[in-house]
Formats: sequence, C-alpha cells, structure tokens
Amino acid sequence: MSKILIVGGVAGGATAAARLRRLDEHADIIMFERGEYISFANCGLPYYIGGDITEKSVLTLQTPESFKARFNVDVRIYSEVIGINRKEKNVRVKNLKTGEEYTESYDKLILSPGAEPVKPAIEGAGNEKVFTLRNIPDTYRIKDYIETHNPKTAVVVGGGYIGIEMAENLAHAGAAVTIVEFADHVIAPLDYDMACDVHNHIREKGVRLILNDGVKAIAPEGDGLRVTLGNQVLTAEMVILSVGVRPEGSLAKDAGLDVNPRGAILVDSHMRTADDNIYAVGDAVEITDFVTGGKGYIPLAGPANKQGRIAADNICGIETSYGGTQGTGILKCFDLTVATTGITEAKAKAEGLSYEKSYTYSASHASYYPGAVNMSVKLLFEVPTGRILGAQIVGYEGVDKRIDVIATAMRAGMTVYDLTRLELAYAPPYSSAKDPVNMAGFVAENILEKRVKVAHWHEVATLPKDGSVTLLDVRTVPEYENGHIDGFVNIPLDELRQHLDKLDKSKPVYATCQVGLRGYVACRILSQMGYDCYNLSGGYRLYNSILG
Amino acid sequence: MSKILIVGGVAGGATAAARLRRLDEHADIIMFERGEYISFANCGLPYYIGGDITEKSVLTLQTPESFKARFNVDVRIYSEVIGINRKEKNVRVKNLKTGEEYTESYDKLILSPGAEPVKPAIEGAGNEKVFTLRNIPDTYRIKDYIETHNPKTAVVVGGGYIGIEMAENLAHAGAAVTIVEFADHVIAPLDYDMACDVHNHIREKGVRLILNDGVKAIAPEGDGLRVTLGNQVLTAEMVILSVGVRPEGSLAKDAGLDVNPRGAILVDSHMRTADDNIYAVGDAVEITDFVTGGKGYIPLAGPANKQGRIAADNICGIETSYGGTQGTGILKCFDLTVATTGITEAKAKAEGLSYEKSYTYSASHASYYPGAVNMSVKLLFEVPTGRILGAQIVGYEGVDKRIDVIATAMRAGMTVYDLTRLELAYAPPYSSAKDPVNMAGFVAENILEKRVKVAHWHEVATLPKDGSVTLLDVRTVPEYENGHIDGFVNIPLDELRQHLDKLDKSKPVYATCQVGLRGYVACRILSQMGYDCYNLSGGYRLYNSILG
Ligand SMILES: Cc1cc2nc3c(=O)[nH]c(=O)nc-3n(C[C@H](O)[C@H](O)[C@H](O)COP(=O)(O)OP(=O)(O)OC[C@H]3O[C@@H](n4cnc5c(N)ncnc54)[C@H](O)[C@@H]3O)c2cc1C
Ligand SMILES: Cc1cc2nc3c(=O)[nH]c(=O)nc-3n(C[C@H](O)[C@H](O)[C@H](O)COP(=O)(O)OP(=O)(O)OC[C@H]3O[C@@H](n4cnc5c(N)ncnc54)[C@H](O)[C@@H]3O)c2cc1C
Ligand SMILES: CC(C)(COP(=O)(O)OP(=O)(O)OC[C@H]1O[C@@H](n2cnc3c(N)ncnc32)[C@H](O)[C@@H]1OP(=O)(O)O)[C@@H](O)C(=O)NCCC(=O)NCCS
Ligand SMILES: CC(C)(COP(=O)(O)OP(=O)(O)OC[C@H]1O[C@@H](n2cnc3c(N)ncnc32)[C@H](O)[C@@H]1OP(=O)(O)O)[C@@H](O)C(=O)NCCC(=O)NCCS
Repeated sequence: MSKILIVGGVAGGATAAARLRRLDEHADIIMFERGEYISFANCGLPYYIGGDITEKSVLTLQTPESFKARFNVDVRIYSEVIGINRKEKNVRVKNLKTGEEYTESYDKLILSPGAEPVKPAIEGAGNEKVFTLRNIPDTYRIKDYIETHNPKTAVVVGGGYIGIEMAENLAHAGAAVTIVEFADHVIAPLDYDMACDVHNHIREKGVRLILNDGVKAIAPEGDGLRVTLGNQVLTAEMVILSVGVRPEGSLAKDAGLDVNPRGAILVDSHMRTADDNIYAVGDAVEITDFVTGGKGYIPLAGPANKQGRIAADNICGIETSYGGTQGTGILKCFDLTVATTGITEAKAKAEGLSYEKSYTYSASHASYYPGAVNMSVKLLFEVPTGRILGAQIVGYEGVDKRIDVIATAMRAGMTVYDLTRLELAYAPPYSSAKDPVNMAGFVAENILEKRVKVAHWHEVATLPKDGSVTLLDVRTVPEYENGHIDGFVNIPLDELRQHLDKLDKSKPVYATCQVGLRGYVACRILSQMGYDCYNLSGGYRLYNSILG
Repeated sequence: MSKILIVGGVAGGATAAARLRRLDEHADIIMFERGEYISFANCGLPYYIGGDITEKSVLTLQTPESFKARFNVDVRIYSEVIGINRKEKNVRVKNLKTGEEYTESYDKLILSPGAEPVKPAIEGAGNEKVFTLRNIPDTYRIKDYIETHNPKTAVVVGGGYIGIEMAENLAHAGAAVTIVEFADHVIAPLDYDMACDVHNHIREKGVRLILNDGVKAIAPEGDGLRVTLGNQVLTAEMVILSVGVRPEGSLAKDAGLDVNPRGAILVDSHMRTADDNIYAVGDAVEITDFVTGGKGYIPLAGPANKQGRIAADNICGIETSYGGTQGTGILKCFDLTVATTGITEAKAKAEGLSYEKSYTYSASHASYYPGAVNMSVKLLFEVPTGRILGAQIVGYEGVDKRIDVIATAMRAGMTVYDLTRLELAYAPPYSSAKDPVNMAGFVAENILEKRVKVAHWHEVATLPKDGSVTLLDVRTVPEYENGHIDGFVNIPLDELRQHLDKLDKSKPVYATCQVGLRGYVACRILSQMGYDCYNLSGGYRLYNSILG
C-alpha cells in the first residue's frame, strides 16, 4: 500500500487527491491544507464580495468531512507543511491550531501550494484597510469591511484579471472605484490596441482608470487612506492590491528542489520534479509555453486541475504528459467579455518571431436576428507558415465561444488556413454562415497569400501627408462626415470604379473603411488596376478606438 | 477576359460571385436568379414569420443594384437557366417576366441552384392552405395567410430543423401546433436517446408531437383542412410541409453531368464536375462525409458559402479543396439549444464502426455562479483509437460553444484523449475549470482505457431481475426515494465502503446514480475490491428522460 501526501487542498491538490483515490482504492492518502477550507472556488470570490453570489456555502465544493466520506482521504486542515526531508521521505507538519509539529512519511509527495498575492514593498501596504484576495478568509475580511464601513471610494492597484473583477464588484457594492495600473494598458495578455476598447468600457462604467502610474505609498488620512502615486495623490476608504501573484516555491526550494528566479518549481512534462518521488502542480510551478516552447508562468485554474490529474496518473503508473500552457483566459469586465489565448504581439516581437496580424469585427450571430452585437478579433499568426500564435477577442455575446474554438485549433496545431475550413454550427441565433473565426481565417489567409497588403493603425502617423501618397476613405459620405482620419479623402467604395481617374497611379494608395472589409475590396480593385495599395487593417473603428 | 456565369444568387452563388470579383477585377461575371431576390437570409425566414424579425428589409443582404455597385456583377433576376450546352459552352436563359429566351456563353459556369422542399405525393398537398418554405415569396405567403386568417391550429409535417423552427414560430404567432414525424424521433442528426429531452421540451411548450406516423392525405374541411395520418385524423387551419429537401440537379443531369440517385450533382474536392468548365456547390451537390469518407447529402449554409468561395478560387487558379462536410448543425427549439456534429450512433452502427459512447451532464458555467444550467452531452468515439465520430448536445446556454469546440477538434483529427487536454477559457460566468468538453473527454478516456465498464440505458431492460446480479443505486436516500429504476437497491456512495458486506462478490454489480459520476466512483471502488462492476452510463437522469 503506497502512501501519498499532498500539500494544498484546493484546485490542484484536491483534484489530484480525488483522482488518486479513483485510481487506487488502497493507497493511503493524506491532504494537508494550511487554511480552514479545502476545495474552494477561488475564482468565485470576487462575485461573493460583489453580491452576485449570495450563499457562503456555494464557495466550498467539499469539506474535509465530505471529502473523507467520498474519497476516503485523510484531510488535515490548519496543517502547514513546513519542511520536506527528501532523504528520509517525510514532511514536517505544523498544526496551526495547537502549534504542535510532527513528521509524516511518504512514498510520493504532491505539492500544490499555489501562489500568494504579491504585496509590494511600499510604505503602508500593511494597513488594515489595504486588502489582498486569495482565499475565503481574505474574502470575508473584505466583505465584512464593506458591510461595516460602507466605503464610498476604493482604489484597486493593478489592472489584471483579479483587479478588474474586484473593481467591477466593488462598483456593484456601491463604491466609486479607481484602478491604478503601472503599464500602459490593463490585462497583460492583451496588446495595447485591443485593451483600448476595455479602457473605454471601464471608464463608461464610471470607474476611473489611471494608466502608466504606480503606487508609491499608502498612509492613513482621516477615516481613510491617502494613496500616493508617482504623479498624483488619491484618497480612498479602502485599497485592493492585485499586482500579481508569486508562486509558493519556498518549501520546494528549501528542500533543494529547483525553482526558477521567480520562485516557481521546475517540473518535467509528467509534473515530476527532479526528485522522482515529488510532483508539483498548479500555480506553484513553471510551465512550458505551448506556443514558444519557452518557459513561463501562467497561473490558471484549468491548468492546475489538469496538472493535478496528470500527477495522480503518473503516480499510479499511467504515463500522461502535460502539453504546456497556452494561456487561454477570459474575463467579464462589466458588460464586456475579454478573452485571450496564446501569445501577445508584444511577446511575438520580443521572441523575434516573424508574424502578421489580422483585425476583424464580426457579429456575434446573424445580424438580421435580434440581439447581434459585434466583437473585435485580433489574430496573430506566423509568417509564412500561418501557424496561429494567439488571439484576443473583446466583445459581448459569443466571445467565449470564439476564443475556445481558436484555442482548440491552436492546440491541434492548426493554421489560419484551417480556420477558414472549420465547420461551425450555424443558425441565426448562434452565428453566421461565415463564423467570426472563419472570417478571421479568411482575412489572415489573404494577408499571408499577399492578396492584399496591409498597413496598421500605428503606421498611420508615419504616412507622408505631403500628397506623395493617396489617403483614401471608401466609406459612405455620412460615415466619412461622422468622423475620419485627418488627411484621408472620401470616395465611397461603390463609386470607386467610376472615379479611378481621380487617383494617381504613380502614388501608393492607403485605403480605409470602417472595419477593413471595404478597404480590402477597394485594394483588390485598385491593385488589379495597377495601383500599389494598402488596406488599413481594422479600419477607422480600430484606429479611432485607440487614437480617437 | 474570362466570362463566368453563375446559376443561383443566394448562399453559394452570391458568395462565389463576390469572391470571383475580388480575385478577378476584369472577369465578366453574370449571376442568374430565377426568383426576385438574391442574397437573402433563408435561415432567417422562420423568424420573420414568427415575428422575431420585424423588418422585411433585413432578410435581403444585397439587391441586384447593390451587388452591381459593389461587385460589378451583372445580376439578372427572374432569369431561369433552362439548359446547358456543354459543347458550345453556353446556357439557355428564360426571362420569367417576358417569357423571352436567349443564349449566354461561358468560359466557366458555377451551379448553385440549391434544393427544393420535398412535396410528398399525397392527395391534397397542393391545397392553398398547405405551405412549404424555401424563399421570400413562400415566407410572405405564409405570413400573409397568418395575418389574414389568424389560424388557431396548424400542423407541421416533419420534425427536422425547419419543421421545428416553424412549429416554434407558428406557436409564437398564436397557433396551437401539432408536429407529425414519421420517424421515432425528431431531428435526424440526433439519436433517439438524445431526442427524448427535445420531445419532452416541445410537449412542455404546448406543442403536440406525434411520432411514428405520417400524413396520408389532406382534404378541405369546413374553413380548414382534414389531415389524415396512418393512425388518426387531425384538423388544422394550415399545414406546413417540411419533410426534407431535394437537390435541384436536373439542369446538370440534363446536360449529361453525373448526379446521384437522389439527384445531387457529383463534384470533386475542387467543387468541379466531370466537365472541367463547370463547378457546382451548395445544396445541389453530393458531399463527402468528413467522418466516414463515404458520400452523403448535408444541405447547410456554412458548407454552401465555403464551397462557393472554393469554386471561385479554383476558377481563378488558386487550388483549394473542400475537405468534406461533417454536418455541424444547431437548432433553437423554444428555450432549448440542440446541436450536433459528425455522425450519429445509428450511422456508426450502420457503417459497422467499432465505437463506444459517453454521456455527461455538465453545467454551462461554474455552478456557484448565478444562472448555470446543465447540458447533456453524448460523445461518440471509435474503439480503440479514440477518434471522435460525433457529438450531440442538448441544453441551454453554452451548447453552441461546446459543439463548436468538438467540431473543431474533429476537423483537426483529434481524439477523445485530446479533449482532456484542451485549454479552454475559464472564469465563473463562462465555464468550469474542467469544461464540459474536457469532462466528456475524461469519461470517454476512462471507458476506452477500461478503467470502468459501462452499461447503457437500453441494456437495463435485459438485466436479470432474479437476484443473479446486484442492481445498485448509489444516490442519496432522498434522491432514490424521489424515483429510481425498478429493482435497484440503494446504498449511498458516501456509505459504500462501510457496506461492502451487503454486496455479494460473486455477482456482477450494475451501479447507477443521477448522471453517471457517482456510479463511476462506485465502480472504481468496487472493481478494485474484486467486484465485476458496470456503471450505468448517463445514470438515472438519462434513463428516466428516455423511459420515464
Ligand atoms: C480571486 C481569484 C480569482 C481567480 N479567478 C480565476 C479565474 O477566473 N480563472 C482561472 O483560471 N483562474 C482564476 N484564479 C486562479 C486559480 O484560482 C488558481 O490558478 C488555482 O486555484 C491554482 O490552484 P493551486 O492548487 O495551484 O493553488 P490554490 O488553489 O491556491 O491552492 C493552494 C492551497 O495550498 C495551501 N498551502 C500552501 N502552502 C501550504 C503548505 N506549506 N502547507 C499546507 N497548505 C499549503 C494554500 O493555503 C492553498 O489553499 C483566481 C484566483 C483568485 C485568487
Ligand atoms: C427556412 C430555411 C431555414 C434554414 N435554416 C438554416 C440554418 O439555420 N442553418 C443552416 O446552415 N442552413 C439553413 N438552411 C439551409 C441553407 O439556407 C442552405 O443550405 C443554403 O441556402 C444553400 O445555398 P445554395 O446556394 O446551395 O442554395 P440557395 O440558397 O437555395 O440558392 C439557390 C438559388 O438558386 C435559384 N435557382 C435554382 N435553379 C435556378 C435556375 N435554373 N436558374 C436560376 N436560378 C435558379 C433559386 O431560386 C435559389 O434562389 C435553411 C433553409 C431554409 C429554407
Ligand atoms: C471538487 C474537486 C475535489 C473535484 O475533483 P474531481 O472529483 O476530480 O472532479 P469532478 O467532481 O469534476 O469529477 C470529475 C471526475 O468524474 C468523472 N465524471 C464526470 N462526469 C461523469 C459522468 N457523467 N459519468 C462518469 N464519470 C463522470 C470524470 O471522468 C472525472 O473522473 P477522472 O478524473 O477519474 O476521469 C476539485 O475539482 C476541487 O477541489 N475544485 C475546487 C477548487 C478549484 O478548482 N478552484 C479553482 C476554480 S474556482
Ligand atoms: C452577402 C454575400 C454576397 C456576401 O458575400 P461575401 O462578400 O463573400 O461575404 P462577406 O460580406 O461576409 O465578406 C467576406 C469577405 O470580406 C473579407 N473581410 C471580412 N472582414 C474583413 C476585415 N475586417 N478586413 C478585411 N477583409 C475582411 C473576407 O476576407 C472575405 O473576403 P474573401 O472571401 O475574399 O477572403 C453572401 O454572403 C450572401 O449572399 N449571403 C446571404 C445568403 C446566405 O448565405 N444564406 C444562407 C444563410 S442565411
């Protein structure tokens, strides 16, 4: 009978324990959890604070008792594993209630200790009105503070997933919220261009958004806090720090296992550390980036769950591998849905990859059926292979579907050519005969096959305004009059063939329209008529959302 | 300058024309359409009748004039192509307004004539209160009839996609609707077991559903119609015939091109007929079944659009291929969403494939986040390879997403093992850390890897009730008391380990629970304790939805 110890009783740990038991009814399994709760819904915590989730009980999927009854696992809460003796194959456990310490031996050990919120080393970060959010006690602390103090103002430091979820939920709870983000845009897995719609939406919802600035100090002031940024000073009744997480790698490190500079534990594709008897999974481990093959750190619940199951499999003699993390993520940001998979353009550039990108703007379902809303899709692909490197989608209904389809295509090693061939479910309430994913594929294919040359929004500023190039807007007159890029002249697409005489063939033409479709058609006409023509990718809509 | 003629101006034809023009600004392109409208939204027609779509204008995406302005295509409506002279490379066109006929020559010809509703050869099918639905005039005819006659009763003959959409929309328009379906279940791309939930839902919505019966005759009676079935007689003020469509292959056939026994035109993967200069696409053509590699007929808008683009590509020297149709389809049926991809179990059986199936029942998103609803997933896979043969999903929110993910995985040639590895977007409003697709993969993997033996709902009736096998229900006592399968005894899963003494090791155990999960866990416990154990796949829920 083998004895398996697990450190951490939530996503990776509890999943591993459950799978271990199903695979091995006879094993002796002990799961240690430092806190009071196991198997809890970390991801639901912001929604309990905001009031969407009203029952405390739904936050915990299992209790130690139910887990024992179902899986015959010895669950020990308030039990911190404080040391690993690899030679003796045992761990040192501290009972946090009694202070008592003891040793527990193992045949196999799984580490799933997760990651802790980064607490920036700034003055005042320890103030009781400054919160971080990781677990249920943190949640109650924030919720209690809101209920007793009824704060009118809150500052959220960090515009990542958790920061934005907290901003939304604090706004729901009645606070005027300011988000402070150090980078030039929120949500790091988005590129700047795609984040602009998110910025606009956040501001429309009444949340103040401060970019390119960070918190230097926090100090009590009156009943609240004085929050000093680089460029200004804010006051607030509470502060949420959500500037990222740090892997809990010290237990492993202290036991002589390898961790990376960030502190994440190194594992092979079986989730095994360099010690054959020790596995590590979840937010505590370094991952292989599915796209680049490089090393990375992407702490997400799906991967943690999968890795927990894979560790259990390997311990029980089923050789399964983890194929790397691609970073598929999604966020509800007020009414918006923001989703990403794969790498960003910024990363592609940093990696020196040869890439191109397409921007499309497609209806969530058939535009003639009620309720259709548009989504922005940015697709990043390798040149010349067409391998999909990543996608970013911002919109409302149906964003989650399209990112999952692209994530699946990426996992399968598909190219943008393959996206054009996907046979996706179509009826008017659900999609269009050419699904947004097919459409992104078509546009990417046209770029790759050089059927159209593209210019991007960031190149517009560098285009000569001296008349040496033709800047052409092919939208209708009312659209053009409603707002256009400086210097662009208007010839509506449907009249273009009649007005070729107005266009000098010796000058390059930069065509734009609303989203890129008509500009593309214009380019096809003009290039076959002997013009050197470029389509402004994403059109006026994208340009205006970024620079308008 | 090449001259290209297109027969049919809707999904396949108009898409081909648009793509042709984009690829070749100089070609002479003429598109013939027999009817008054081009580029119309066939798929939206039922929703105009039901009133969800209120504007006539949104049903037509293009007019002949707009198409000319945008694409410089000569669009000739009311113009029926009545003959093809392949030797002379010309077609005979009849102007349906004037009766005039003329000849038009071509270099390349694309046929996209679609398919017509089957009108069964029964007495009374020609009655003016009996309708079929294909195009805009049909739609106006039905809508006008409803507005002028305000029918209180309607019979829909045929429970396919269009029949059910019409039933729903006629119910919305205020009629008491009866659906008559010849087969034992509605929606042919579903298996019987998965259709049962749909039957229940249709009936709950107040629609009468008559299965296993067909219409023999229709006759006027009073102000309405007398509809004679095999086993009963109905009366109704209107009848919709939606018993399938027949490809419009006669033009091709008369020109000596090959059609299959059904009348569908034969083409190669470039959408080319045996005549190098003639292409055919859309509802008029026979397709290669993506899953079986056999020939088939699957008339859907997505494939028609794709094929139109591919025909245009090949004509313009871009060699692209159509990779077969997998039959991804979706239907809104009142509040339900019903979606399928790949082949049914019935088809797998008929093809003699070695297959197994899994049934799962998963929440649309995290169950602790408000609004989660369950969906039923049937996954069909090849044994022993794990190749995905098909999937059927019935539920509410998020069904379209999961079918598209599985359709994408199938297109990529993925197996059920790959489904377990998909990294899909997770946040509480959108999914679970183990997405329903991952979950279906896990369950299928366990079956394939023989980690659990399964019994299926249709085998229950054949299980001996003489005590020679143990029939075990592992749900809680209240669940069991609320309804269980005759002969099954109750030991709740969480007490199972304590009660093994009650189970005779020499007898096979058939375990069930609500959806299959706890039965699986019970089987893992029991099989490792030396029992020969089978899990009732899909559990009591599936069993009861079919036989309850
Ligand atoms: C507020 C919030 C929202 C989130 N939203 C999402 C989302 O929408 N989507 C998504 O994919 N991910 C989300 N995540 C991330 C997701 O929760 C994590 O990726 C996942 O929980 C990681 O699982 P894990 O097992 O590695 O760590 P955890 O789930 O954090 O579990 C680790 C456990 O180990 C315990 N532990 C640590 N050290 C020891 C020790 N030495 N001894 C005993 N016990 C120890 C800890 O107390 C902790 O309970 C969110 C996280 C938070 C905090
Ligand atoms: C009510 C309804 C609902 C539908 N819903 C869906 C759905 O939700 N999802 C889905 O995927 N599919 C749906 N479909 C099917 C979809 O509309 C078809 O698959 C698609 O339109 C086929 O395109 P096509 O170009 O082959 O034929 P069509 O779109 O039918 O176009 C053929 C055109 O050719 C013309 N024509 C025929 N012969 C001649 C001739 N000799 N000369 C000149 N013109 C000719 C016809 O008048 C017709 O307008 C639906 C169809 C209907 C009728
Ligand atoms: C609650 C928890 C312990 C459950 O772990 P689990 O038992 O592995 O997961 P589930 O309850 O989803 O069950 C999945 C198992 O049931 C099986 N199963 C599911 N539906 C089934 C069905 N209808 N028929 C047969 N088997 C089924 C699956 O195959 C899988 O078993 P396997 O891993 O042996 O293949 C764990 O998920 C957890 O702690 N979650 C909360 C923490 C968390 O994830 N937080 C981050 C997100 S908020
Ligand atoms: C209206 C109709 C003629 C349009 O055909 P179309 O021009 O091929 O299709 P779209 O308007 O969707 O445009 C797609 C083209 O624009 C391009 N495009 C789309 N968005 C773009 C963007 N943002 N930037 C650049 N190009 C873009 C695509 O690449 C594609 O061009 P390609 O085929 O040359 O690669 C045709 O779809 C039709 O008749 N539809 C109605 C009938 C029907 O489908 N019925 C059944 C369903 S109800």
